[in-house]
Amino acid sequence: MKIEKVGIVGLGTVGTGTLKILINEREKIHQKTGVWIDVKKACDLNIEREFDFDVDRSIFTNNYNELIEDDEISIIVELIGGYTIAKDIIIKALKAGKNVVTANKALIAKYSKELFAIANSNGTKIYYEASVGGGIPIITPLQESLAGNNILSIKGIINGTANYILTEMTEKNIEFEKVLKKAQELGYAEADPTFDIEGIDTAHKITILASLAYGGYVDFEKVGVKGITSITGEDIKFANDLGYNIKLLATAKKYEDEEIEVRVQPTLISQKEILSNVNDVYNAIEVIGDYVGKTMFYGKGAGMEPTGSAVVADVIKLATEDLANNIPKGNYYYNINKELSLRALEKSISKYYIRLNVKDEIGTLAFVTNKFKDNNISIESMIQTCKSFDDNKFVSLIFITHDVLEADLKKSLDEIYISENVNVEKSILLKIDE
Amino acid sequence: MKIEKVGIVGLGTVGTGTLKILINEREKIHQKTGVWIDVKKACDLNIEREFDFDVDRSIFTNNYNELIEDDEISIIVELIGGYTIAKDIIIKALKAGKNVVTANKALIAKYSKELFAIANSNGTKIYYEASVGGGIPIITPLQESLAGNNILSIKGIINGTANYILTEMTEKNIEFEKVLKKAQELGYAEADPTFDIEGIDTAHKITILASLAYGGYVDFEKVGVKGITSITGEDIKFANDLGYNIKLLATAKKYEDEEIEVRVQPTLISQKEILSNVNDVYNAIEVIGDYVGKTMFYGKGAGMEPTGSAVVADVIKLATEDLANNIPKGNYYYNINKELSLRALEKSISKYYIRLNVKDEIGTLAFVTNKFKDNNISIESMIQTCKSFDDNKFVSLIFITHDVLEADLKKSLDEIYISENVNVEKSILLKIDE
Ligand SMILES: NC(=O)c1ccc[n+]([C@@H]2O[C@H](COP(=O)([O-])OP(=O)(O)OC[C@H]3O[C@@H](n4cnc5c(N)ncnc54)[C@H](OP(=O)(O)O)[C@@H]3O)[C@@H](O)[C@H]2O)c1
Ligand SMILES: NC(=O)c1ccc[n+]([C@@H]2O[C@H](COP(=O)([O-])OP(=O)(O)OC[C@H]3O[C@@H](n4cnc5c(N)ncnc54)[C@H](OP(=O)(O)O)[C@@H]3O)[C@@H](O)[C@H]2O)c1
Repeated sequence: MKIEKVGIVGLGTVGTGTLKILINEREKIHQKTGVWIDVKKACDLNIEREFDFDVDRSIFTNNYNELIEDDEISIIVELIGGYTIAKDIIIKALKAGKNVVTANKALIAKYSKELFAIANSNGTKIYYEASVGGGIPIITPLQESLAGNNILSIKGIINGTANYILTEMTEKNIEFEKVLKKAQELGYAEADPTFDIEGIDTAHKITILASLAYGGYVDFEKVGVKGITSITGEDIKFANDLGYNIKLLATAKKYEDEEIEVRVQPTLISQKEILSNVNDVYNAIEVIGDYVGKTMFYGKGAGMEPTGSAVVADVIKLATEDLANNIPKGNYYYNINKELSLRALEKSISKYYIRLNVKDEIGTLAFVTNKFKDNNISIESMIQTCKSFDDNKFVSLIFITHDVLEADLKKSLDEIYISENVNVEKSILLKIDE
Repeated sequence: MKIEKVGIVGLGTVGTGTLKILINEREKIHQKTGVWIDVKKACDLNIEREFDFDVDRSIFTNNYNELIEDDEISIIVELIGGYTIAKDIIIKALKAGKNVVTANKALIAKYSKELFAIANSNGTKIYYEASVGGGIPIITPLQESLAGNNILSIKGIINGTANYILTEMTEKNIEFEKVLKKAQELGYAEADPTFDIEGIDTAHKITILASLAYGGYVDFEKVGVKGITSITGEDIKFANDLGYNIKLLATAKKYEDEEIEVRVQPTLISQKEILSNVNDVYNAIEVIGDYVGKTMFYGKGAGMEPTGSAVVADVIKLATEDLANNIPKGNYYYNINKELSLRALEKSISKYYIRLNVKDEIGTLAFVTNKFKDNNISIESMIQTCKSFDDNKFVSLIFITHDVLEADLKKSLDEIYISENVNVEKSILLKIDE
């Protein structure tokens, strides 16, 4: 009979979900796996909090060192978040010979190289299924189930808050600021929503997925990131009329020259695509492998119990793996000594949606279209709105391009944005995924 | 350095895909996992066949006993299909202390109990990721990633042939027989398509998933199965007009009294649901867990390389697992000594679509609606077509019911079908999933 003792640090949203599942399902997990998993200690700054499940309160402490110094505890679950104390706890745990489970995508995206090296040199492991896609199994399928494949591309809607906001804007015709406020009231968005709406959280997650898919280190700072803050109801309406929905899309793609493109940006996706119909707080990740073809993983990307479900899966995985395992440790991570060469975003070729907020004056249209022409930007269609929503002297010009080189497009826009007749703050460039 | 020697039996569609991936990706799989996987022998009745990849032909044999008697081979991959020789090979391999990988859903659905018992008593394992959903990772996510959850329900579109036929009928307005012929010409349907169109293949797969989800043996013979052969273009048109698509749906569900309902039947699914938009040869499986909520797994459910990808994943899993693993073997299967209690289909409550082919005579409608009334079948809406497509004296009556008890519905139909004015062969009953 194998008993595995676990320590949890951080009993907030995810920590509470994890503790609940490990306690309430202890017997069932034993039936399924043959292992008893006991939470020996759980640590939080506030250990007076109430739970909606029975828990022996003697396991609580507010000093995480008690968990790390406990020789019986073999797995530390880090669920406090952030880069500082969380990192410190994980490093101490690994050095103490304990395996680690975390949901901390920010930390893994930025410091995986350092943390995995420490794990490797201590013969310990870090699992982080919950860090991407919350409850959706995606790390394990990518590492194991698709291991025979060369991953051609990954596309993901992996931030529930951003997706909720875009869904509400689309379905209820409400502007960004109002929906954001509603999302905060409902608890879908944090008090400081920057990471979610600026695409940073999404970038953390695609960094992790790209590393696993392409087997090397991705420098998070080099990932191209654009958020959703400047999308208007007008953009959504036009996109819908043209048969698209706008989603905050994370993509990772390998080119023939082995360069990897990793980016996050709002994107028009054809309504015929399943990804385009992933709504509200749901997440979905499409992975294309050379043998398996297109696969997709869908589910709740956040929340107490869905995320707890993924943390528990990692705990079970560690608990059922033989500690005397003789496979070289760390090979199921990625090669931390190999940095992937990230492709310059300017090299990418795509269709685009461009909305320019321009002065309603003779000559403006000609000026703009000439700049496009001079830079090889071929336009598929153009719409001029009668009146801009908020200013009677400015109107919106909307262009759909053919496939164009991003460098050319940037250059044309730089030239266009110089003009006093164009309001840069109220203009927008969105990718079209086809 | 760990080297794992593998033997493959059966080099048809899936065997060829598996061999190709193991040979072409040998180096990359080693990079990812730290293990070298060598196909030492491969067996087929016809070992003269040509492959589109380089292979050392000295590994071929037409005698599978050579693989089983080879002490160096630790994993046997069975890919010949069927119940007889395949079963024999697997049993011999397990008894010889080898682990087994198979894609044989028919065999696992019917004989898992016997085969897993043999595996357990020999300290060996059988993996079968490819048996359900082809290339889609579903067995592993269900066994491992969702292990903390109690599975509330599973819904799957898991037969590519049936889904291709229904998609073509829907999109191109072609009748069943013609699409089936086309599917056979394109190689999507077998010469004998019975297993696919009668729902038997789908039933094999949902039997396997239900066992894993609910942790016990499911008697395949007791699974409710209905195929797609009597669905007409008229049904599809009416379903579409009402906002549904018709899919061959496999479902497994646990009721509060612990009874499990496992069934396969053509079902109207709201076009708003993602499952409803899974088309052509794609498969999708929706799994709802009590903690994780709704998850979905999507991809190609068949084909040489997608299915090979799943077989390779199992081979890698075995190759990287420590053979001296001290977890009780078999616990990641299900409890083979526990037979799940299957719920009588008559107990189920659902909305239904009923098409009755009736004589166009005064009184028929009253007769039918009275029988419904007498049996508590409450009707939500009714459509009478002007003319039946193939007989001027008969017309179609289409009913959409409210939620009704299946037993009541069966009884009312038994009473209706007695009438000479109703053509039973040309009538149909389809479930509505809401
Ligand atoms: N929420 C989700 O749905 C979700 C989904 C996927 C991944 N994640 C990741 O999961 C992690 C946890 O997220 P969360 O939403 O659960 O955060 P949270 O609700 O803010 O919980 C963090 C908990 O850690 C406690 N804590 C902070 N510093 C501590 C310390 N030094 N010692 C002990 N406890 C300490 C906090 O206590 P106080 O409240 O008293 O400060 C709080 O209870 C983050 O890395 C997040 O990115 C979250
Ligand atoms: N095809 C798919 O997409 C798919 C997807 C999921 C699961 N599966 C399952 O995978 C298994 C294989 O399917 P498949 O489509 O690859 O079948 P297949 O193309 O018919 O291949 C079977 C192969 O086994 C050979 N064989 C038959 N008896 C043999 C024997 N005694 N010794 C050695 N070789 C023998 C056959 O040789 P001959 O041709 O010379 O008879 C044939 O090459 C089945 O269980 C199937 O249900 C298939």
